[in-house]
Amino acid sequence: MAATRVTVWGEFRHEKKNERVKSLYPDGMHTVIADSIAKRLGNDVEVRTATLDEPEHGLTDEVLANTDVMTWWGHAAHAEVQDEIVDKVHQRVLEGMGLLVLHSGHFSKIFRKLMGTTCALRWREQAEREILWCVNPGHPIADGLTDEYFELPDTEMYGELFDIPTPDELIFISWFEGGEVFRSGATWTRGKGKIFYFRPGHETFPIYFDENVQRVIANGVKWAAPSSSAPYRGDGRNITPPIAPIAGEHEVDESLHKH
Amino acid sequence: MAATRVTVWGEFRHEKKNERVKSLYPDGMHTVIADSIAKRLGNDVEVRTATLDEPEHGLTDEVLANTDVMTWWGHAAHAEVQDEIVDKVHQRVLEGMGLLVLHSGHFSKIFRKLMGTTCALRWREQAEREILWCVNPGHPIADGLTDEYFELPDTEMYGELFDIPTPDELIFISWFEGGEVFRSGATWTRGKGKIFYFRPGHETFPIYFDENVQRVIANGVKWAAPSSSAPYRGDGRNITPPIAPIAGEHEVDESLHKH
Amino acid sequence: MAATRVTVWGEFRHEKKNERVKSLYPDGMHTVIADSIAKRLGNDVEVRTATLDEPEHGLTDEVLANTDVMTWWGHAAHAEVQDEIVDKVHQRVLEGMGLLVLHSGHFSKIFRKLMGTTCALRWREQAEREILWCVNPGHPIADGLTDEYFELPDTEMYGELFDIPTPDELIFISWFEGGEVFRSGATWTRGKGKIFYFRPGHETFPIYFDENVQRVIANGVKWAAPSSSAPYRGDGRNITPPIAPIAGEHEVDESLHKH
Amino acid sequence: MAATRVTVWGEFRHEKKNERVKSLYPDGMHTVIADSIAKRLGNDVEVRTATLDEPEHGLTDEVLANTDVMTWWGHAAHAEVQDEIVDKVHQRVLEGMGLLVLHSGHFSKIFRKLMGTTCALRWREQAEREILWCVNPGHPIADGLTDEYFELPDTEMYGELFDIPTPDELIFISWFEGGEVFRSGATWTRGKGKIFYFRPGHETFPIYFDENVQRVIANGVKWAAPSSSAPYRGDGRNITPPIAPIAGEHEVDESLHKH
Repeated sequence: MAATRVTVWGEFRHEKKNERVKSLYPDGMHTVIADSIAKRLGNDVEVRTATLDEPEHGLTDEVLANTDVMTWWGHAAHAEVQDEIVDKVHQRVLEGMGLLVLHSGHFSKIFRKLMGTTCALRWREQAEREILWCVNPGHPIADGLTDEYFELPDTEMYGELFDIPTPDELIFISWFEGGEVFRSGATWTRGKGKIFYFRPGHETFPIYFDENVQRVIANGVKWAAPSSSAPYRGDGRNITPPIAPIAGEHEVDESLHKH
Repeated sequence: MAATRVTVWGEFRHEKKNERVKSLYPDGMHTVIADSIAKRLGNDVEVRTATLDEPEHGLTDEVLANTDVMTWWGHAAHAEVQDEIVDKVHQRVLEGMGLLVLHSGHFSKIFRKLMGTTCALRWREQAEREILWCVNPGHPIADGLTDEYFELPDTEMYGELFDIPTPDELIFISWFEGGEVFRSGATWTRGKGKIFYFRPGHETFPIYFDENVQRVIANGVKWAAPSSSAPYRGDGRNITPPIAPIAGEHEVDESLHKH
Repeated sequence: MAATRVTVWGEFRHEKKNERVKSLYPDGMHTVIADSIAKRLGNDVEVRTATLDEPEHGLTDEVLANTDVMTWWGHAAHAEVQDEIVDKVHQRVLEGMGLLVLHSGHFSKIFRKLMGTTCALRWREQAEREILWCVNPGHPIADGLTDEYFELPDTEMYGELFDIPTPDELIFISWFEGGEVFRSGATWTRGKGKIFYFRPGHETFPIYFDENVQRVIANGVKWAAPSSSAPYRGDGRNITPPIAPIAGEHEVDESLHKH
Repeated sequence: MAATRVTVWGEFRHEKKNERVKSLYPDGMHTVIADSIAKRLGNDVEVRTATLDEPEHGLTDEVLANTDVMTWWGHAAHAEVQDEIVDKVHQRVLEGMGLLVLHSGHFSKIFRKLMGTTCALRWREQAEREILWCVNPGHPIADGLTDEYFELPDTEMYGELFDIPTPDELIFISWFEGGEVFRSGATWTRGKGKIFYFRPGHETFPIYFDENVQRVIANGVKWAAPSSSAPYRGDGRNITPPIAPIAGEHEVDESLHKH
């Protein structure tokens, strides 16, 4: 089987201007994420990265056409992502490209466009404890977890209401020290594309070095990879019937049709 | 209980330029739909109409603020609906306004924005027989149906793949003479708003005079009416914890936050 | 509209043998639950109670036939509920009777039969704080809540994994002081019947006197009441086609059929 | 990766007593199904069969413990399957064993126990045409299909209402010549186990020789194979908190607990 081609997209701004972030992720968060995917999935993947400040945000037509799964991390510069690029990523998801949306990527244009809601949430940055409970232990994204929950010692809190459509599958629910809960791991399908939102990750905490977080992201990449060659056409289409003839006769005014 | 305020929106173009449509719906399809809702739900509703060619498409801030449930029929002029109005309708749905999307409204800007997919489908206009099977007989939208299915003698066919997210609830599946099937009645929630897509209806067939179609639309209006006063905030928000104190200490770089 | 006929079922054993429970609920938990439903819904309901130690557990054919919504609380004596009665309740749910399963009712025979899973969960009785977050503010079961969460000061903890099928709708997620989370309010449909599981409630805490708990239970009763007269037949059936004739000819060996 | 161990279970009665069935499936339907899975999945699977009239229906503890995915075909003798064996199969599904329920297996004890509903449907045996439309082309179960639908020329009709819980995923909807529709391919999760119901197949038609039917069944086996090692415990359990201490103090009456 051909290797899954993964593009890890990162905003890559905080790492340049904030000392704490720079010290944690000197080459950018996207590099740490990309390396962990490559290490964990080995020959099953080919991983590249792309960032906001590259031409076309690193997401040229050529890159998009050759990406099976994309991971997306953005935070403060969502508005700077060009709509034209967002539309192309959207189209690729519908065609079957998997998409992992990480942490503050919840407010990215691409996630909001796919969800149809605000994707807003409650938040607090106070280095509090998070416990992630698995509520779907049979799901491939949970593979390799050794307990019913895992913990992160210092995190930014995300709390409900998380304004998303009902997930197709709910995999993790987070508990936070301050009293909140959050749907931390959830999936949706749009067109042929599989989407996985995973909450952990913040620029001022070393979340992407955590073993369990890395494991779940790698599982997510495997799960979101295209797994069906069945045809998909997201265009309107006037079709002839599988069976014939139709009994009725009807005069069609073509001028009314703009499907 | 206060009456549900219903706004029936219609494109109202075909009725002016096509003789067959004009003869079926001399005052517009929206008028027939509005009258049937008013007749069936009586004092439980206040019904008004709005159409594309009115200023602001008839959807002023005042109208929107005073609408509990909107029905939407458009066909050939989806592109003429202004994005600014679409955004306002979207916001009202998230706040709790119910939305019924009828027939060719599947390709409207508002439905596509709420769904996140193309909402494309296969179609054929040949006056063929349609049988709608109820697959969720306990749902309030099915109330009053007297058989497991109902029929429409001459319809435009809509066939799968209907490119929508997995419905929260599937209520009707259609059978067509030519060999196709279609998810004809389906619901979703976005924010606080309930959305019901219902397939029947075409400008060149007298579908909106059909008893069962009228019944289902009236049921849909009742179902989609706001039914919860619980608070919803679709904005990001930095919040203080329900419990205190948080054990951790953490220096926050406010410049990184743009939530 | 005819009043919704509610039967509040209670095990009614702890209240007789444990002093603490007796002091909280001298007439039984079921009485407090029934009174709060009657008080909150007024003329919209007729409420009766039934308990384990009555003949047929108080659930005679006559009572079942005249119940629109049943609430179920049991704890230590699930095994004593007769299978024959469980089968009758199951049949009534499929026909459209609403069912509210409360707290330790998660392990009742009727809930397990409807779910198809163990319905097991993690638990701890240590009087800890619970915060219930609403994740579906537009749902009628959330109506009247004034904040995004509500609290209960001293509760028995229920934690994930809650071994249930994916809920059709998830309404509440609980946070517990000890570090757990729980899907505390969830709905399913089976046949025509609507089912609502609601976690709060324990015999040694005065949970059923809480304003928000009472409100949610009353909302649940309203939501679960039958709302569709459409036909439902849960039997197998050999049917003639809506359209005729079928082109094929086929010799049927009736001896093979036992549907 | 170790091979997926598949057990193909068949009632294997019709093949012995009906000449038409015997001529189609001289060694039993289960043999044809098993051979096609083995041929299509090669070294990725180890396939065995088991039938009703073997001791313990061929499903000994040893066989069950060594089965990753089971397929189930039964028709006229559902009642003869021992409850004790059904309970063991149920337990294995919860632990993660995949289950494919084929055609008239919809009325098997194991499927009904997992679903919690009657699983009844409408049917007619008249050799009519069936067209199966794929409504989830990105799903791995649809892999390899080359068109948006596939056909079967002579089938037993199954029609809605199919009395099942809302599927987690809907993959196929069937169209029948006589006017019915049917949810023909659907999935659920129970515990850790994945369940796939697939409609085609009848003893008097050569359905299990069809290329597309064979392909979908093989895909289903791959999809339903256990894919997560995460822990699952379907028992109730008193647990110590991840965090400590709990502020409250509470005297527990152990006699009340029977979880």
